[in-house]
Amino acid sequence: MNSPAPINDPYAALQQLGLKLPLPPAPGGNYMSAKTSSGIVYLAGVISQTPDGLLTGTVGLDRTMEEGYDAARSCALLQLAVLEQHLGSLTKIRSILTVNGYVNSVPGFADSPKVINGASDLLLAVFGEPGRHVRAAIGVSGLPRHAIVELQMTVEI
Amino acid sequence: MNSPAPINDPYAALQQLGLKLPLPPAPGGNYMSAKTSSGIVYLAGVISQTPDGLLTGTVGLDRTMEEGYDAARSCALLQLAVLEQHLGSLTKIRSILTVNGYVNSVPGFADSPKVINGASDLLLAVFGEPGRHVRAAIGVSGLPRHAIVELQMTVEI
Amino acid sequence: MNSPAPINDPYAALQQLGLKLPLPPAPGGNYMSAKTSSGIVYLAGVISQTPDGLLTGTVGLDRTMEEGYDAARSCALLQLAVLEQHLGSLTKIRSILTVNGYVNSVPGFADSPKVINGASDLLLAVFGEPGRHVRAAIGVSGLPRHAIVELQMTVEI
Repeated sequence: MNSPAPINDPYAALQQLGLKLPLPPAPGGNYMSAKTSSGIVYLAGVISQTPDGLLTGTVGLDRTMEEGYDAARSCALLQLAVLEQHLGSLTKIRSILTVNGYVNSVPGFADSPKVINGASDLLLAVFGEPGRHVRAAIGVSGLPRHAIVELQMTVEI
Repeated sequence: MNSPAPINDPYAALQQLGLKLPLPPAPGGNYMSAKTSSGIVYLAGVISQTPDGLLTGTVGLDRTMEEGYDAARSCALLQLAVLEQHLGSLTKIRSILTVNGYVNSVPGFADSPKVINGASDLLLAVFGEPGRHVRAAIGVSGLPRHAIVELQMTVEI
Repeated sequence: MNSPAPINDPYAALQQLGLKLPLPPAPGGNYMSAKTSSGIVYLAGVISQTPDGLLTGTVGLDRTMEEGYDAARSCALLQLAVLEQHLGSLTKIRSILTVNGYVNSVPGFADSPKVINGASDLLLAVFGEPGRHVRAAIGVSGLPRHAIVELQMTVEI
């Protein structure tokens, strides 16, 4: 609980980035999108998509690193939409705590960190230093609905 | 800590479902099955099995979606057995917080949510709404002892 | 918070094991190595390496189980280095809470627990019983920079 209050206004940052929050995705199964316990919001994994549709494919096969990066960024933006719906406002967020990023990729794929930077870079741009988090990036052999990226997060409020 | 107390009696629900808690599985390595910190029980991953033996195989190769669903359900039941042993009684559970489900599956497998619903559906049937949790479902290339599903959970007490 | 204080002096244990803490690894992307919230330290995933270089490869293809075990052990040692840098001293650690170990391995690899024991065994040797943790071990198709193992942890202080 030693994180400073956000210095960034997340909404001003989003506007500066030219980004609008999408609709929060409906859970793709019998679960919920966010649950709070003792000041930590646990977020379900979201899969990469834009208002135009799912971002699907396999990095190293039919998707490039850049497409992977954009997919990870879309996941972070979706999680912000989930958080706004859950909390009422992004200004209640004190800090981003953890990010686990799974990349649908060919066997031996070694660049999942560069893909998941798409999420991390956005979280830092929106929240400033309190947006900096711990992270794991993993290459996996399959994600829900053939998504390129799935992203799971925890957040301090 | 804003979850309501369970409205379901988990033992009555298990009886109604015709389910008995199995023996909790012994850890498959140098670790423990459950550890509590500040009101949250962290559970080690358990692998799919029934009292008749391990549920092994690869969804999309030699196992169907239905077999995957049943495997996920067996994992949730095993976690309830672990929780009873750790807590003394399932009635001490306030809420299921998180579920991470890993599905042993062929490359490109896109239906891990439908598989992991086997766990989520059981947790809801047993605990009612407090059993609803956040979740990530991931397709992976290998699980301990060729298990179909591995399931990790955190629980509020 | 019912863990007893460590009975082991972690530094004496490291000396007895003939181990020195390596330099903590720099994050491989736009994130941080450790972040504390409400008495729990969340650690970013670290990848297997020694002061001589990265430990890379795929268990079951070009790496043996023993090499996997050593890689997992190297990850645990790196996390201790991260913890010392973050906390000032390993003596502030009350207990190791969770370990998630990802093993770069061939499809169908079933022995990730034996690999991740390399981390668990070291944590127990260094901290005694408070070092015993809950765990998940997963075989995956790709890890950052072709690492053999990636290890994520949470720790009680």
